[in-house]
Order: sequence, then structure tokens, then C-alpha cells
Amino acid sequence: MRILGIDPGYAIVGWGIVDYQSNRFAVVDYGSITTNAHTSFPSRLATIYTDLVEIINHYKPDTLSIEKLFFNDNAKTAIDVSQARGVILLAAQQNGLSISEYTPLQVKSAIVGYGRAEKAQVQEMTRIMLKLKSIPKPDDAADALGLAICHGTSSGSLLKE
Amino acid sequence: MRILGIDPGYAIVGWGIVDYQSNRFAVVDYGSITTNAHTSFPSRLATIYTDLVEIINHYKPDTLSIEKLFFNDNAKTAIDVSQARGVILLAAQQNGLSISEYTPLQVKSAIVGYGRAEKAQVQEMTRIMLKLKSIPKPDDAADALGLAICHGTSSGSLLKE
Repeated sequence: MRILGIDPGYAIVGWGIVDYQSNRFAVVDYGSITTNAHTSFPSRLATIYTDLVEIINHYKPDTLSIEKLFFNDNAKTAIDVSQARGVILLAAQQNGLSISEYTPLQVKSAIVGYGRAEKAQVQEMTRIMLKLKSIPKPDDAADALGLAICHGTSSGSLLKE
Repeated sequence: MRILGIDPGYAIVGWGIVDYQSNRFAVVDYGSITTNAHTSFPSRLATIYTDLVEIINHYKPDTLSIEKLFFNDNAKTAIDVSQARGVILLAAQQNGLSISEYTPLQVKSAIVGYGRAEKAQVQEMTRIMLKLKSIPKPDDAADALGLAICHGTSSGSLLKE
């Protein structure tokens, strides 16, 4: 199973692609889509869509694992991140990926074993599980790889595949 | 100028198309896109995108006038409406429409003349301005036509066209 993990955003969208087979993970590629703050918001959405479709067509993942959103404070950020996340879900849906979402708590639990783990611990465990020499940069890409791992372990334990 | 007004949502997306020329409005068509609550959220987003692109290709509007979102209470609804709105902005951007957004206060002010007007007053004035026999149904379509009118009067007064 090839999993595309996505850390949603409108300025930076982290992405990471991981193959998961026989309880083993192998990183395929990762990176981030960045959008130009000096262009209109709709054109930033179009950049996210175009770049993401290109990544999907290139790596042909089977499934998307994306962070579930919660917001309590900044409504403006909530609206803009959600608008970008809608475009990401659309691109995945149109390209035939199955789609799962996980909370940060679920990601931490899946990778470190408990939900209150520090960000640095999660990133270090992600590095070890993917046999990488250093922690992936930017943080958004590391988080995206964490989401991909989370889906692998979850679907494995739930025998959903 | 042909204006597409959109009242964003994920269960119902109201739309209305209005021609505005020489300070006169003529309604072209209006209606609503409804999505099936028994399908996945990403597939509801795909329905909105597909139907909206079809409407844009059919009527070829020059510009989109869409409601600006504010949320204070229900975060779940805020996230889902925002995700749908992102898909709507994407469809407009990809098809070359210019895009404007207006608050409910701006729409009421543009149509009735003051921002605290009742919904029924706004709908009745919309009906009169568009020379319709009855108030457009559903409410989402009436609101969408109101957004189109708002953009017409605003761009007229601001000489933006």
C-alpha cells in the first residue's frame, strides 16, 4: 500500500509518500507545496490543487492520510486552512484515492505510543521508522510522513486493507 | 457583465446568474446544487466542483460574487462550509472568473439600503430588482442572486468593471 500523508495548510502543504508492506515502511519521497503570499487566495488554492494532482499522478498513491482539523481560536486561519483542505480532498477524490483522517493525538499514539509525546519525539521516531539519516524538513513534510505512518499502522491493526 | 452569485455550503450551494448592464439587472438563471448526505464528504466536494464547473461552462459568467464567511459558534460547520467554499473558489479561479466576496451586511446594504434589513425584505427587493413574479426558491438561490446584485451595484459605484 502506498500512502500519501498530507499536513494541510494554505501557505505550506506538507506531503510525504510511504510504502507500507508486511509491517515495514519505506519512504518514497516527501516535500512541501508552498504558495505565494503575494498572489490572490484563489490562485493559491489553484497552485495547491495543480501541484498536488501532479504529485498524485507521479507517485500514484493508493490512499490519502490527512490531518483532521480542530479550531478554537483564530477563525480566519481556520477558514483559510479549511478552504485549502477542501481542495486537497477534492484532488484525492477525483484521482481515486481512499481518504482517511487522523487527529494529532492519533498520530502521536501511533508513532510514539502515547498521545502527549513532544513534537521532537514524534519526529525522531518518524526518522527511525523510515530509516532516514536526518529528520525530514520542513516540519510540514515531517508531519505529513507521520500521518502516512499513522495510517499504515492503523490500517494494519484494523485489517482494513 | 455577467455575475455568478454563490451562497456557499456543503449540503446546498445556492447559485444565481445575473446580467448587469447600464444599471439594470436581468436574471439569467438560478438554482441550487445539492449533495447527498449519505455519500462521503470528499465525494460531496467532487459533486459541488463538477456541477459548478458545468454551470460556469454553460452560462460563462465573467465574475463570481461569493459570501464572505464568519464563524463564532459551530466549528464543525465552519470547517465543512469552508472546505466546500475552497472548492468553489478553485472552480472559479480555474475557469478565469474574477472573484469578489461580500459580507451579509454589504449585501443587505446594497439591496435594501441598510445593513439590518430583515431577510424577507432583502428577498422581496431582490425579486423586484430582478422583475421576478415570486421570491426565488430555495432561500440559498435567493441569497445567491442577492450576492450577484450586490456585486453589480458595488462594481458600478466603484467603476471597477
